[in-house]
Amino acid sequence: MSEIRKHYFLPEYCIISEERAKRPSDFAEAVGDSEELGRASCAFCEGAEEMTPLATAVYKDGKILVDTDEKRVRSWDFRCFPNRYPALSPVPAFFELSENVWETRPGFGFHEVIVESPVHGNKLANFSDKELSGLMGVYRDRTSHYRAHENIRYVSLFKNSGKAAGASLNHPHSQLLALPLLPPLLEKELHAIREEEKCPYCTLLEKERTSERLIRENSEWTAFAPYCSASPFEVWVLPKKHVSWLGDCSEEALFSLGEMLRDVLRAYEKVLKNPPYNYMFFQLFETPEYHLNLRLLPRLSRIAGFEMNTGIYINTISPERAASYLKRERRPGE
Amino acid sequence: MSEIRKHYFLPEYCIISEERAKRPSDFAEAVGDSEELGRASCAFCEGAEEMTPLATAVYKDGKILVDTDEKRVRSWDFRCFPNRYPALSPVPAFFELSENVWETRPGFGFHEVIVESPVHGNKLANFSDKELSGLMGVYRDRTSHYRAHENIRYVSLFKNSGKAAGASLNHPHSQLLALPLLPPLLEKELHAIREEEKCPYCTLLEKERTSERLIRENSEWTAFAPYCSASPFEVWVLPKKHVSWLGDCSEEALFSLGEMLRDVLRAYEKVLKNPPYNYMFFQLFETPEYHLNLRLLPRLSRIAGFEMNTGIYINTISPERAASYLKRERRPGE
Repeated sequence: MSEIRKHYFLPEYCIISEERAKRPSDFAEAVGDSEELGRASCAFCEGAEEMTPLATAVYKDGKILVDTDEKRVRSWDFRCFPNRYPALSPVPAFFELSENVWETRPGFGFHEVIVESPVHGNKLANFSDKELSGLMGVYRDRTSHYRAHENIRYVSLFKNSGKAAGASLNHPHSQLLALPLLPPLLEKELHAIREEEKCPYCTLLEKERTSERLIRENSEWTAFAPYCSASPFEVWVLPKKHVSWLGDCSEEALFSLGEMLRDVLRAYEKVLKNPPYNYMFFQLFETPEYHLNLRLLPRLSRIAGFEMNTGIYINTISPERAASYLKRERRPGE
Repeated sequence: MSEIRKHYFLPEYCIISEERAKRPSDFAEAVGDSEELGRASCAFCEGAEEMTPLATAVYKDGKILVDTDEKRVRSWDFRCFPNRYPALSPVPAFFELSENVWETRPGFGFHEVIVESPVHGNKLANFSDKELSGLMGVYRDRTSHYRAHENIRYVSLFKNSGKAAGASLNHPHSQLLALPLLPPLLEKELHAIREEEKCPYCTLLEKERTSERLIRENSEWTAFAPYCSASPFEVWVLPKKHVSWLGDCSEEALFSLGEMLRDVLRAYEKVLKNPPYNYMFFQLFETPEYHLNLRLLPRLSRIAGFEMNTGIYINTISPERAASYLKRERRPGE
C-alpha cells in the first residue's frame, strides 16, 4: 500500500508507492548514462584555457588569481569563469511592466562555471582530502563573492553530473547562478520557517539523527534520506550546528562537508552504479533563521504529467529503504 | 539578453534565455524518442483485455459497459481500467501522525488508465472527429465519476506520450489519478485567485487573444504560448467562457476542445517532428471561481540543479517565438 506524506513544514506532499517500482521500465534509465560527454576538445581541461571566457577566479597553490586578456593562468587546481551560454548576465537591473502589464525585468545576474579539477575523467567520489576541502573552499568563496554584490539576493550553487541530470559535458564541474531575487522555493521555506517557534530544520535534524533514515554522521554533518523524499535515494546533508550559509562554516566544517559529500557520492556509486545525479546547496545570507542544507538526488526517474499537474511527486523507493541500501553500500538484492 | 518573467498572478518566475539555445546539446533529446515502446504483447491492444485489471468503463457503440470476471468487453472504442501499478488505491482514507510526528496517511485514491484507441499505433493527431469528441466525453465522464466519490478532492487527468515524457508504453493512453486532497499547485492558484477581484485567467485570456503569443482560436477555445512559459513550446488552451471543470462544458465545447487538442498536437508534429509530450487538465469541481485550462508541453529539455534549487525554470525559446513557429507550423529555419 502506498502512502501520502506531507513535507516536514511546507504544504507539499509526496506519494511513496513502492508497488510501482515493479514496473519493468523503472530504473532502466540509469544504465548507459556513463557515456563520455564531450571528451573531445573539452574546454574545461587543463591546457584549453583559451576556449573559455576569462577566468574570474583561478585557484593555484593556495592563491586566487584571475585571467587577463594577455595571460591565462595555467596549471591550476580549480577554475571559475562565466558560462559561455549564460542564463543571466550582468546587465543593469531594474523592474518594468511589459506592454501587457505583466512583470518582466532584464535577466540580470551572474552565471559561472566552477571546474572542479584540471583532469577530465576525475570524479568527486575519488577526490583526495585536499581536493575536497579545496573545492568546498571555492564554493564558500564564490558564494561570498556574489553575496557582496549589492543587487544579488540569492546564490544558487549546484552540480549536474551525467546527461540525465542536465550536464552537457562530463568534465567535473559545478555551476553558480547569482540572482537578483529570492527564488520562490526559498521564499516559501522562509515564510514557513518564520511561522515556527524553533528552526524546523533543527527540529527535523534532531529526529532524523535517531531514525532509520539516518545514513551517516561525521563531526559536523548529518546525512539522511528525508522522511518526505520526493525522489528515489534523495539525501539531505545538514550541519549539526545551525548556520545559514557556507560563509558561516568553519574551516573544519568545510573539510568534513567535503568528506560527507564524497561518502554519499561513493554510496551512490556502489548502490546505483554511477548514476547521473544533481546536488544543490540551499543557503541564505543575511538570514540567520535559515538553516543551510545540501540536497543530493540521483536521476533515476522522470517527472511526468501527474507531477506537473499537482506538484506531488511519486517516489518508488521509500526513504527508509533507500537509507538502508546507502548505509550498507549494497545494491538492492545483494 | 535574457529576461526574468513573473507568472501572471503567482509568485513564480521563469528565465527566458535564448542564448542558451545555441548550446549543441539542446534539443538533441527529441530525436530518437520515436522508438516503439512495448509493442510486443501490448496489454492495451484490442484482444489483450485479459492482460489488464477488469475495466471500470468500456465505451462501445455509444454505450458504457464494464468488465466482469466472467466476461471482458470486446471490440471497444475506449477502455478504462485500474493501473496495474497504482500510485494510489482505494484503501480506507484517514489521517494519522507517524511515530515522528510528521504527517502521513494511507495512499487512498484511484489510479486509472484510459486507453484512447484499440489500435496500437494510433495517434491523437490523426484521430477522426468522432474519436476525438468521444475521448473528450470519456475525460468528462471519468472526472465526473470520481468527483462523485465523497473522499475525492481532485482529479488529475493527464497524458504522457513518449519515453522522455514518462510513458512506459506507446499505445495511446491517458491516466487519471483521483486524490483525497487538493494538490499544492491548485491550492496555491486558488489562494491567488481568491485575492483578485476578477478571474485572473479571464484577464490573461483577454490579453493573450490579441498578443503575438496567440496560436489559434476556435468557436470555444483559445490556444496560446503563455507569457511566462517555463518550458519551450508550452501551450495553454483555455475555454473562452469561464467554466471550472470538464463537467461544465457543453457537448459543443467538448467537440471543439478535441479539435483544438488535435490542432496543437499536429503543430507539435510539424514543428518538432513527433516530440515526446505531456498534457494536463487543470480543473476544480465545486469551485466556480476556478477557470479550467489544459496545458501542453513537449519534453525537449530537462530540469536540473538550478530549477530544483530555486523553482525558477530556464526556457531557451521565448513564447513569442514558439507561437510564431506553431502558428505557421514550420520548423525553426524553414
